[in-house]
Amino acid sequence: MFIANSPDYQEILRTIYDEVRPLLSQGKVASYIPQLSKVSPQQFGMAIFCLDGRQFSIGSAGVKFSLQSVTKLFALALAFSREGDAIWTRVGREPSGNPFNSLVQLEYERGKPRNPFINAGALVINDILSSRFVQSDIAILQFARLLADQPDIDFDVTVAQSERETAHRNYAIAHLMKDFGNLHNPVKTVIDSYCRQCSITMTCAELAKAGSFLAQHGTIPWSGQQILDASSAKRLNALMLTCGTYDAAGDFAYRVGLPAKSGVGGGILALVPGELAVAVWSPGLDPTGNSLAGTYALERFTTLTARSIF
Amino acid sequence: MFIANSPDYQEILRTIYDEVRPLLSQGKVASYIPQLSKVSPQQFGMAIFCLDGRQFSIGSAGVKFSLQSVTKLFALALAFSREGDAIWTRVGREPSGNPFNSLVQLEYERGKPRNPFINAGALVINDILSSRFVQSDIAILQFARLLADQPDIDFDVTVAQSERETAHRNYAIAHLMKDFGNLHNPVKTVIDSYCRQCSITMTCAELAKAGSFLAQHGTIPWSGQQILDASSAKRLNALMLTCGTYDAAGDFAYRVGLPAKSGVGGGILALVPGELAVAVWSPGLDPTGNSLAGTYALERFTTLTARSIF
Amino acid sequence: MFIANSPDYQEILRTIYDEVRPLLSQGKVASYIPQLSKVSPQQFGMAIFCLDGRQFSIGSAGVKFSLQSVTKLFALALAFSREGDAIWTRVGREPSGNPFNSLVQLEYERGKPRNPFINAGALVINDILSSRFVQSDIAILQFARLLADQPDIDFDVTVAQSERETAHRNYAIAHLMKDFGNLHNPVKTVIDSYCRQCSITMTCAELAKAGSFLAQHGTIPWSGQQILDASSAKRLNALMLTCGTYDAAGDFAYRVGLPAKSGVGGGILALVPGELAVAVWSPGLDPTGNSLAGTYALERFTTLTARSIF
Amino acid sequence: MFIANSPDYQEILRTIYDEVRPLLSQGKVASYIPQLSKVSPQQFGMAIFCLDGRQFSIGSAGVKFSLQSVTKLFALALAFSREGDAIWTRVGREPSGNPFNSLVQLEYERGKPRNPFINAGALVINDILSSRFVQSDIAILQFARLLADQPDIDFDVTVAQSERETAHRNYAIAHLMKDFGNLHNPVKTVIDSYCRQCSITMTCAELAKAGSFLAQHGTIPWSGQQILDASSAKRLNALMLTCGTYDAAGDFAYRVGLPAKSGVGGGILALVPGELAVAVWSPGLDPTGNSLAGTYALERFTTLTARSIF
Repeated sequence: MFIANSPDYQEILRTIYDEVRPLLSQGKVASYIPQLSKVSPQQFGMAIFCLDGRQFSIGSAGVKFSLQSVTKLFALALAFSREGDAIWTRVGREPSGNPFNSLVQLEYERGKPRNPFINAGALVINDILSSRFVQSDIAILQFARLLADQPDIDFDVTVAQSERETAHRNYAIAHLMKDFGNLHNPVKTVIDSYCRQCSITMTCAELAKAGSFLAQHGTIPWSGQQILDASSAKRLNALMLTCGTYDAAGDFAYRVGLPAKSGVGGGILALVPGELAVAVWSPGLDPTGNSLAGTYALERFTTLTARSIF
Repeated sequence: MFIANSPDYQEILRTIYDEVRPLLSQGKVASYIPQLSKVSPQQFGMAIFCLDGRQFSIGSAGVKFSLQSVTKLFALALAFSREGDAIWTRVGREPSGNPFNSLVQLEYERGKPRNPFINAGALVINDILSSRFVQSDIAILQFARLLADQPDIDFDVTVAQSERETAHRNYAIAHLMKDFGNLHNPVKTVIDSYCRQCSITMTCAELAKAGSFLAQHGTIPWSGQQILDASSAKRLNALMLTCGTYDAAGDFAYRVGLPAKSGVGGGILALVPGELAVAVWSPGLDPTGNSLAGTYALERFTTLTARSIF
Repeated sequence: MFIANSPDYQEILRTIYDEVRPLLSQGKVASYIPQLSKVSPQQFGMAIFCLDGRQFSIGSAGVKFSLQSVTKLFALALAFSREGDAIWTRVGREPSGNPFNSLVQLEYERGKPRNPFINAGALVINDILSSRFVQSDIAILQFARLLADQPDIDFDVTVAQSERETAHRNYAIAHLMKDFGNLHNPVKTVIDSYCRQCSITMTCAELAKAGSFLAQHGTIPWSGQQILDASSAKRLNALMLTCGTYDAAGDFAYRVGLPAKSGVGGGILALVPGELAVAVWSPGLDPTGNSLAGTYALERFTTLTARSIF
Repeated sequence: MFIANSPDYQEILRTIYDEVRPLLSQGKVASYIPQLSKVSPQQFGMAIFCLDGRQFSIGSAGVKFSLQSVTKLFALALAFSREGDAIWTRVGREPSGNPFNSLVQLEYERGKPRNPFINAGALVINDILSSRFVQSDIAILQFARLLADQPDIDFDVTVAQSERETAHRNYAIAHLMKDFGNLHNPVKTVIDSYCRQCSITMTCAELAKAGSFLAQHGTIPWSGQQILDASSAKRLNALMLTCGTYDAAGDFAYRVGLPAKSGVGGGILALVPGELAVAVWSPGLDPTGNSLAGTYALERFTTLTARSIF
């Protein structure tokens, strides 16, 4: 792929790094998972993985962090690659207009989650994988290792344990879906697997690399292995744009204009289709649960590079 | 702008036209506005306006139809061009997760509509224009004439009258916002103007032309007149993608993958940023209020042209 | 009717009067109707009308105040006496579990209000009366005069006017019901009549007398005129208990244990079936919209007299 | 206590028995607990326990049935007798306006159930008892034995087991409250105890006797043992009237006019304060979850005896 006027990404990363510093103290580290609340909000890392193989990074781009909801994207891609459109009989693809862990809509819509990126939807995806694999958490982990080309990617068992102990709301969601017949495996099986899935850690550099197949129309750039066909990859990108950043997807699309998936660990993966994947991490969150400095960094990234899908 | 491999758009339109025929009887014409319910669902038109000036069309692309909610896009562009980001203090930019005319969220969120494309948000935009112009409906009409380069575009007063007589829910929405202090002009003034705004008629060819400035980064292609700066134009595109097709925005993005704005008259305007605007019209609606054949036509369009923002 | 051990009501009123004084400054006068907000919260009056003809009163029991929602009871009794059980096809009889002027439930339940004592339900009752009488407000006024045996009871036109000017939420409710087909007369007709209905003023002494027919199984004690049959009167009492005090009906029943109807003017009418009607007035409201001192006075009344329906 | 004109209760029961026969096939046996769905809907029993010691019964009044939600009344009385008004910091006393097992309101009101008779509230009451007693289910059972003066009252372990296996919604409710900090014991402990509590079986004759202390102002009629003081007993009666029959409390009060508590096993306990307790059982339910024939029988009972609290 020929990039006409590729910007000087390293210079752009330096500019962004300078600009975000004052913001690092403004976000609030996720407090509902005790283990996550111990992370210092002062950290910031950013990495770019270009489809032509070039890589750029700055700050703490080599520090591992908890992917949390970013893993929902990998789990979805895995389920979608195996089950295809059949998954949409069990989970919708509309923005929710509600916080990511609300039960209200789930009850009104009789146990069918609005999309795979709210917790209810991610639990259904995990349930689908639990029906197909002996251990869905291991399957997701191996898939993540494949995507990042990095065999030592792993769970953080302390975080997984911490999450499991405070997973009351996820248990509530799972039991409600079970009541509506939309969870086929035992609740405990799904919750345990989901907590381990969320605990996967990566660095920004690994995350950008792991997401690059979605920028490359479903094909892993360095190996040519097709994970999804081009049409399916586009469709996941569309889902990321409309639903990938909790109840701030509209605002995020307005400001950043790229498909993205965020996590309460402070990571965000964003895509410039046909060109690159970019990952950012900063643990301080804004009130919608997205990384405050990370969102700003991506907003600046699209402005400085003039990259936007719109 | 140089388009490397521009597809044969006329051939593609012909293919689509053949494919949609069996669908024309499946949609349901909007019934809540008596005047609209008289339109035959068997009609279909589609038109492409390329930024390089080429135009293509098929079927009833020269027949006038009622724009309805598509006018929300023009009203928003006009308000945004005059008031800038100040409008976001009065209306949000998140998908609603509810039908376009629901009052539930509006009450929970204390009179601030979720986005400018649900009825509540469109009424606020009309209210903003009513504070700035002597007659907001005339201002929107003149803006539409400018965008379409067509001075004889006009209201359909019969439709406007029909809509006004059945506008009870819009009155309910407006009064609720008035109660919360988020409507500055008299309710009747805003409703009357809004009903006239919705009644504007265009052909597919005119609509594609009128929307082309949003594909051209805010600038009218043939005149070079800047309506919005590039950043603002991108942001409106992002809003169209996340909120432009009622409570089916996620599904529409998934299937079509283009920023779009639909109306219950059966029209849809979609954009391929940097390349073209495409308008489709077929009055039969699917259960979400979007043109059934029109949505399918656009889905085929992105597949056949390999044009998608993702 | 023989009352075995009738308490010394005058002494009890004196005791209550002493006890409520410290509470008079704690309530908050209704602010959403400008005219009502001018009333001093320091006032308190209470009156008892025994079915055997004895009357007792204390404090400002002879001062006129704005009945507001208390008139919903008279309007309902009038409609029920004329239309019988047919009214229940258009309004329910369940507690709402929501504030008295919420639109959420009304939208979910497709325009059928939960009960006749929330605003939506009272508007439907007024609509029913508007279909039967030339002027429903005059019909309600004349009915109130008959019940209170007091021909000079009247509207407070200044309050009615003030209420009409700030009736945006009631307009929203009425238009929503109109949209669902559950309002037969023009919205403006019903709102105007409703605002006049709410503005009727009475003294506590008049209100206790006016409510006494409901304690006397539907028959006016002094004239023997039957307004409702015994079964219907009991049923209105039941409705008062479950729905008569806004979203605090459960708490009110728990504390006071009598059927009652309150208004944001600070008045409350309560009944000891077979024995007496008691009216209390103090304009300072608690957060649920009921008179703070008035509710406490009635709680003390049932304790001191050992009168409760339970 | 002297009853001036005590009706011929046996004759009245006979009349009711004849009248309800055609209704027995119209109700629907609760299906969500497999074990309950096996009960024949053709059964009907009714029993009266007068405070003066007289007892009357008809039909299957001696057949044991599953009390289900009727046990919420006994659990509440036990908790209230031990903890007093402190329980109201953890559960409200307002009608819910929603189905008995909805999660919507619970989420909006941050984990504090509306009242002790919806499932969420009953789980909180069970949790309170679980903090006070080694085994809350045994404590409730022993309390029920004391109230019914019948030591062989027991759990139906098959029903308890069946309920536990299908308790997904109750698990969802309990976990949501746990998430909000309003459940102090482990979820499994509370659910297990609650399922056993609900499985207690009684005959109509036993149930009427067990409820008689609430008609007798908190004191067991035959032993004089005070369970609650008079004021507390009245307050529980008030709660039964406003919240005791699920989301049909308003309709039930309107039609029957007595404080009552129903269960999906088809039982209803109702009280004529100062006079008697009456229990009815028929397994066929109406759409609100109350016994169809049972509600009708109580409506006829209050009409034929002219007993109503209003």
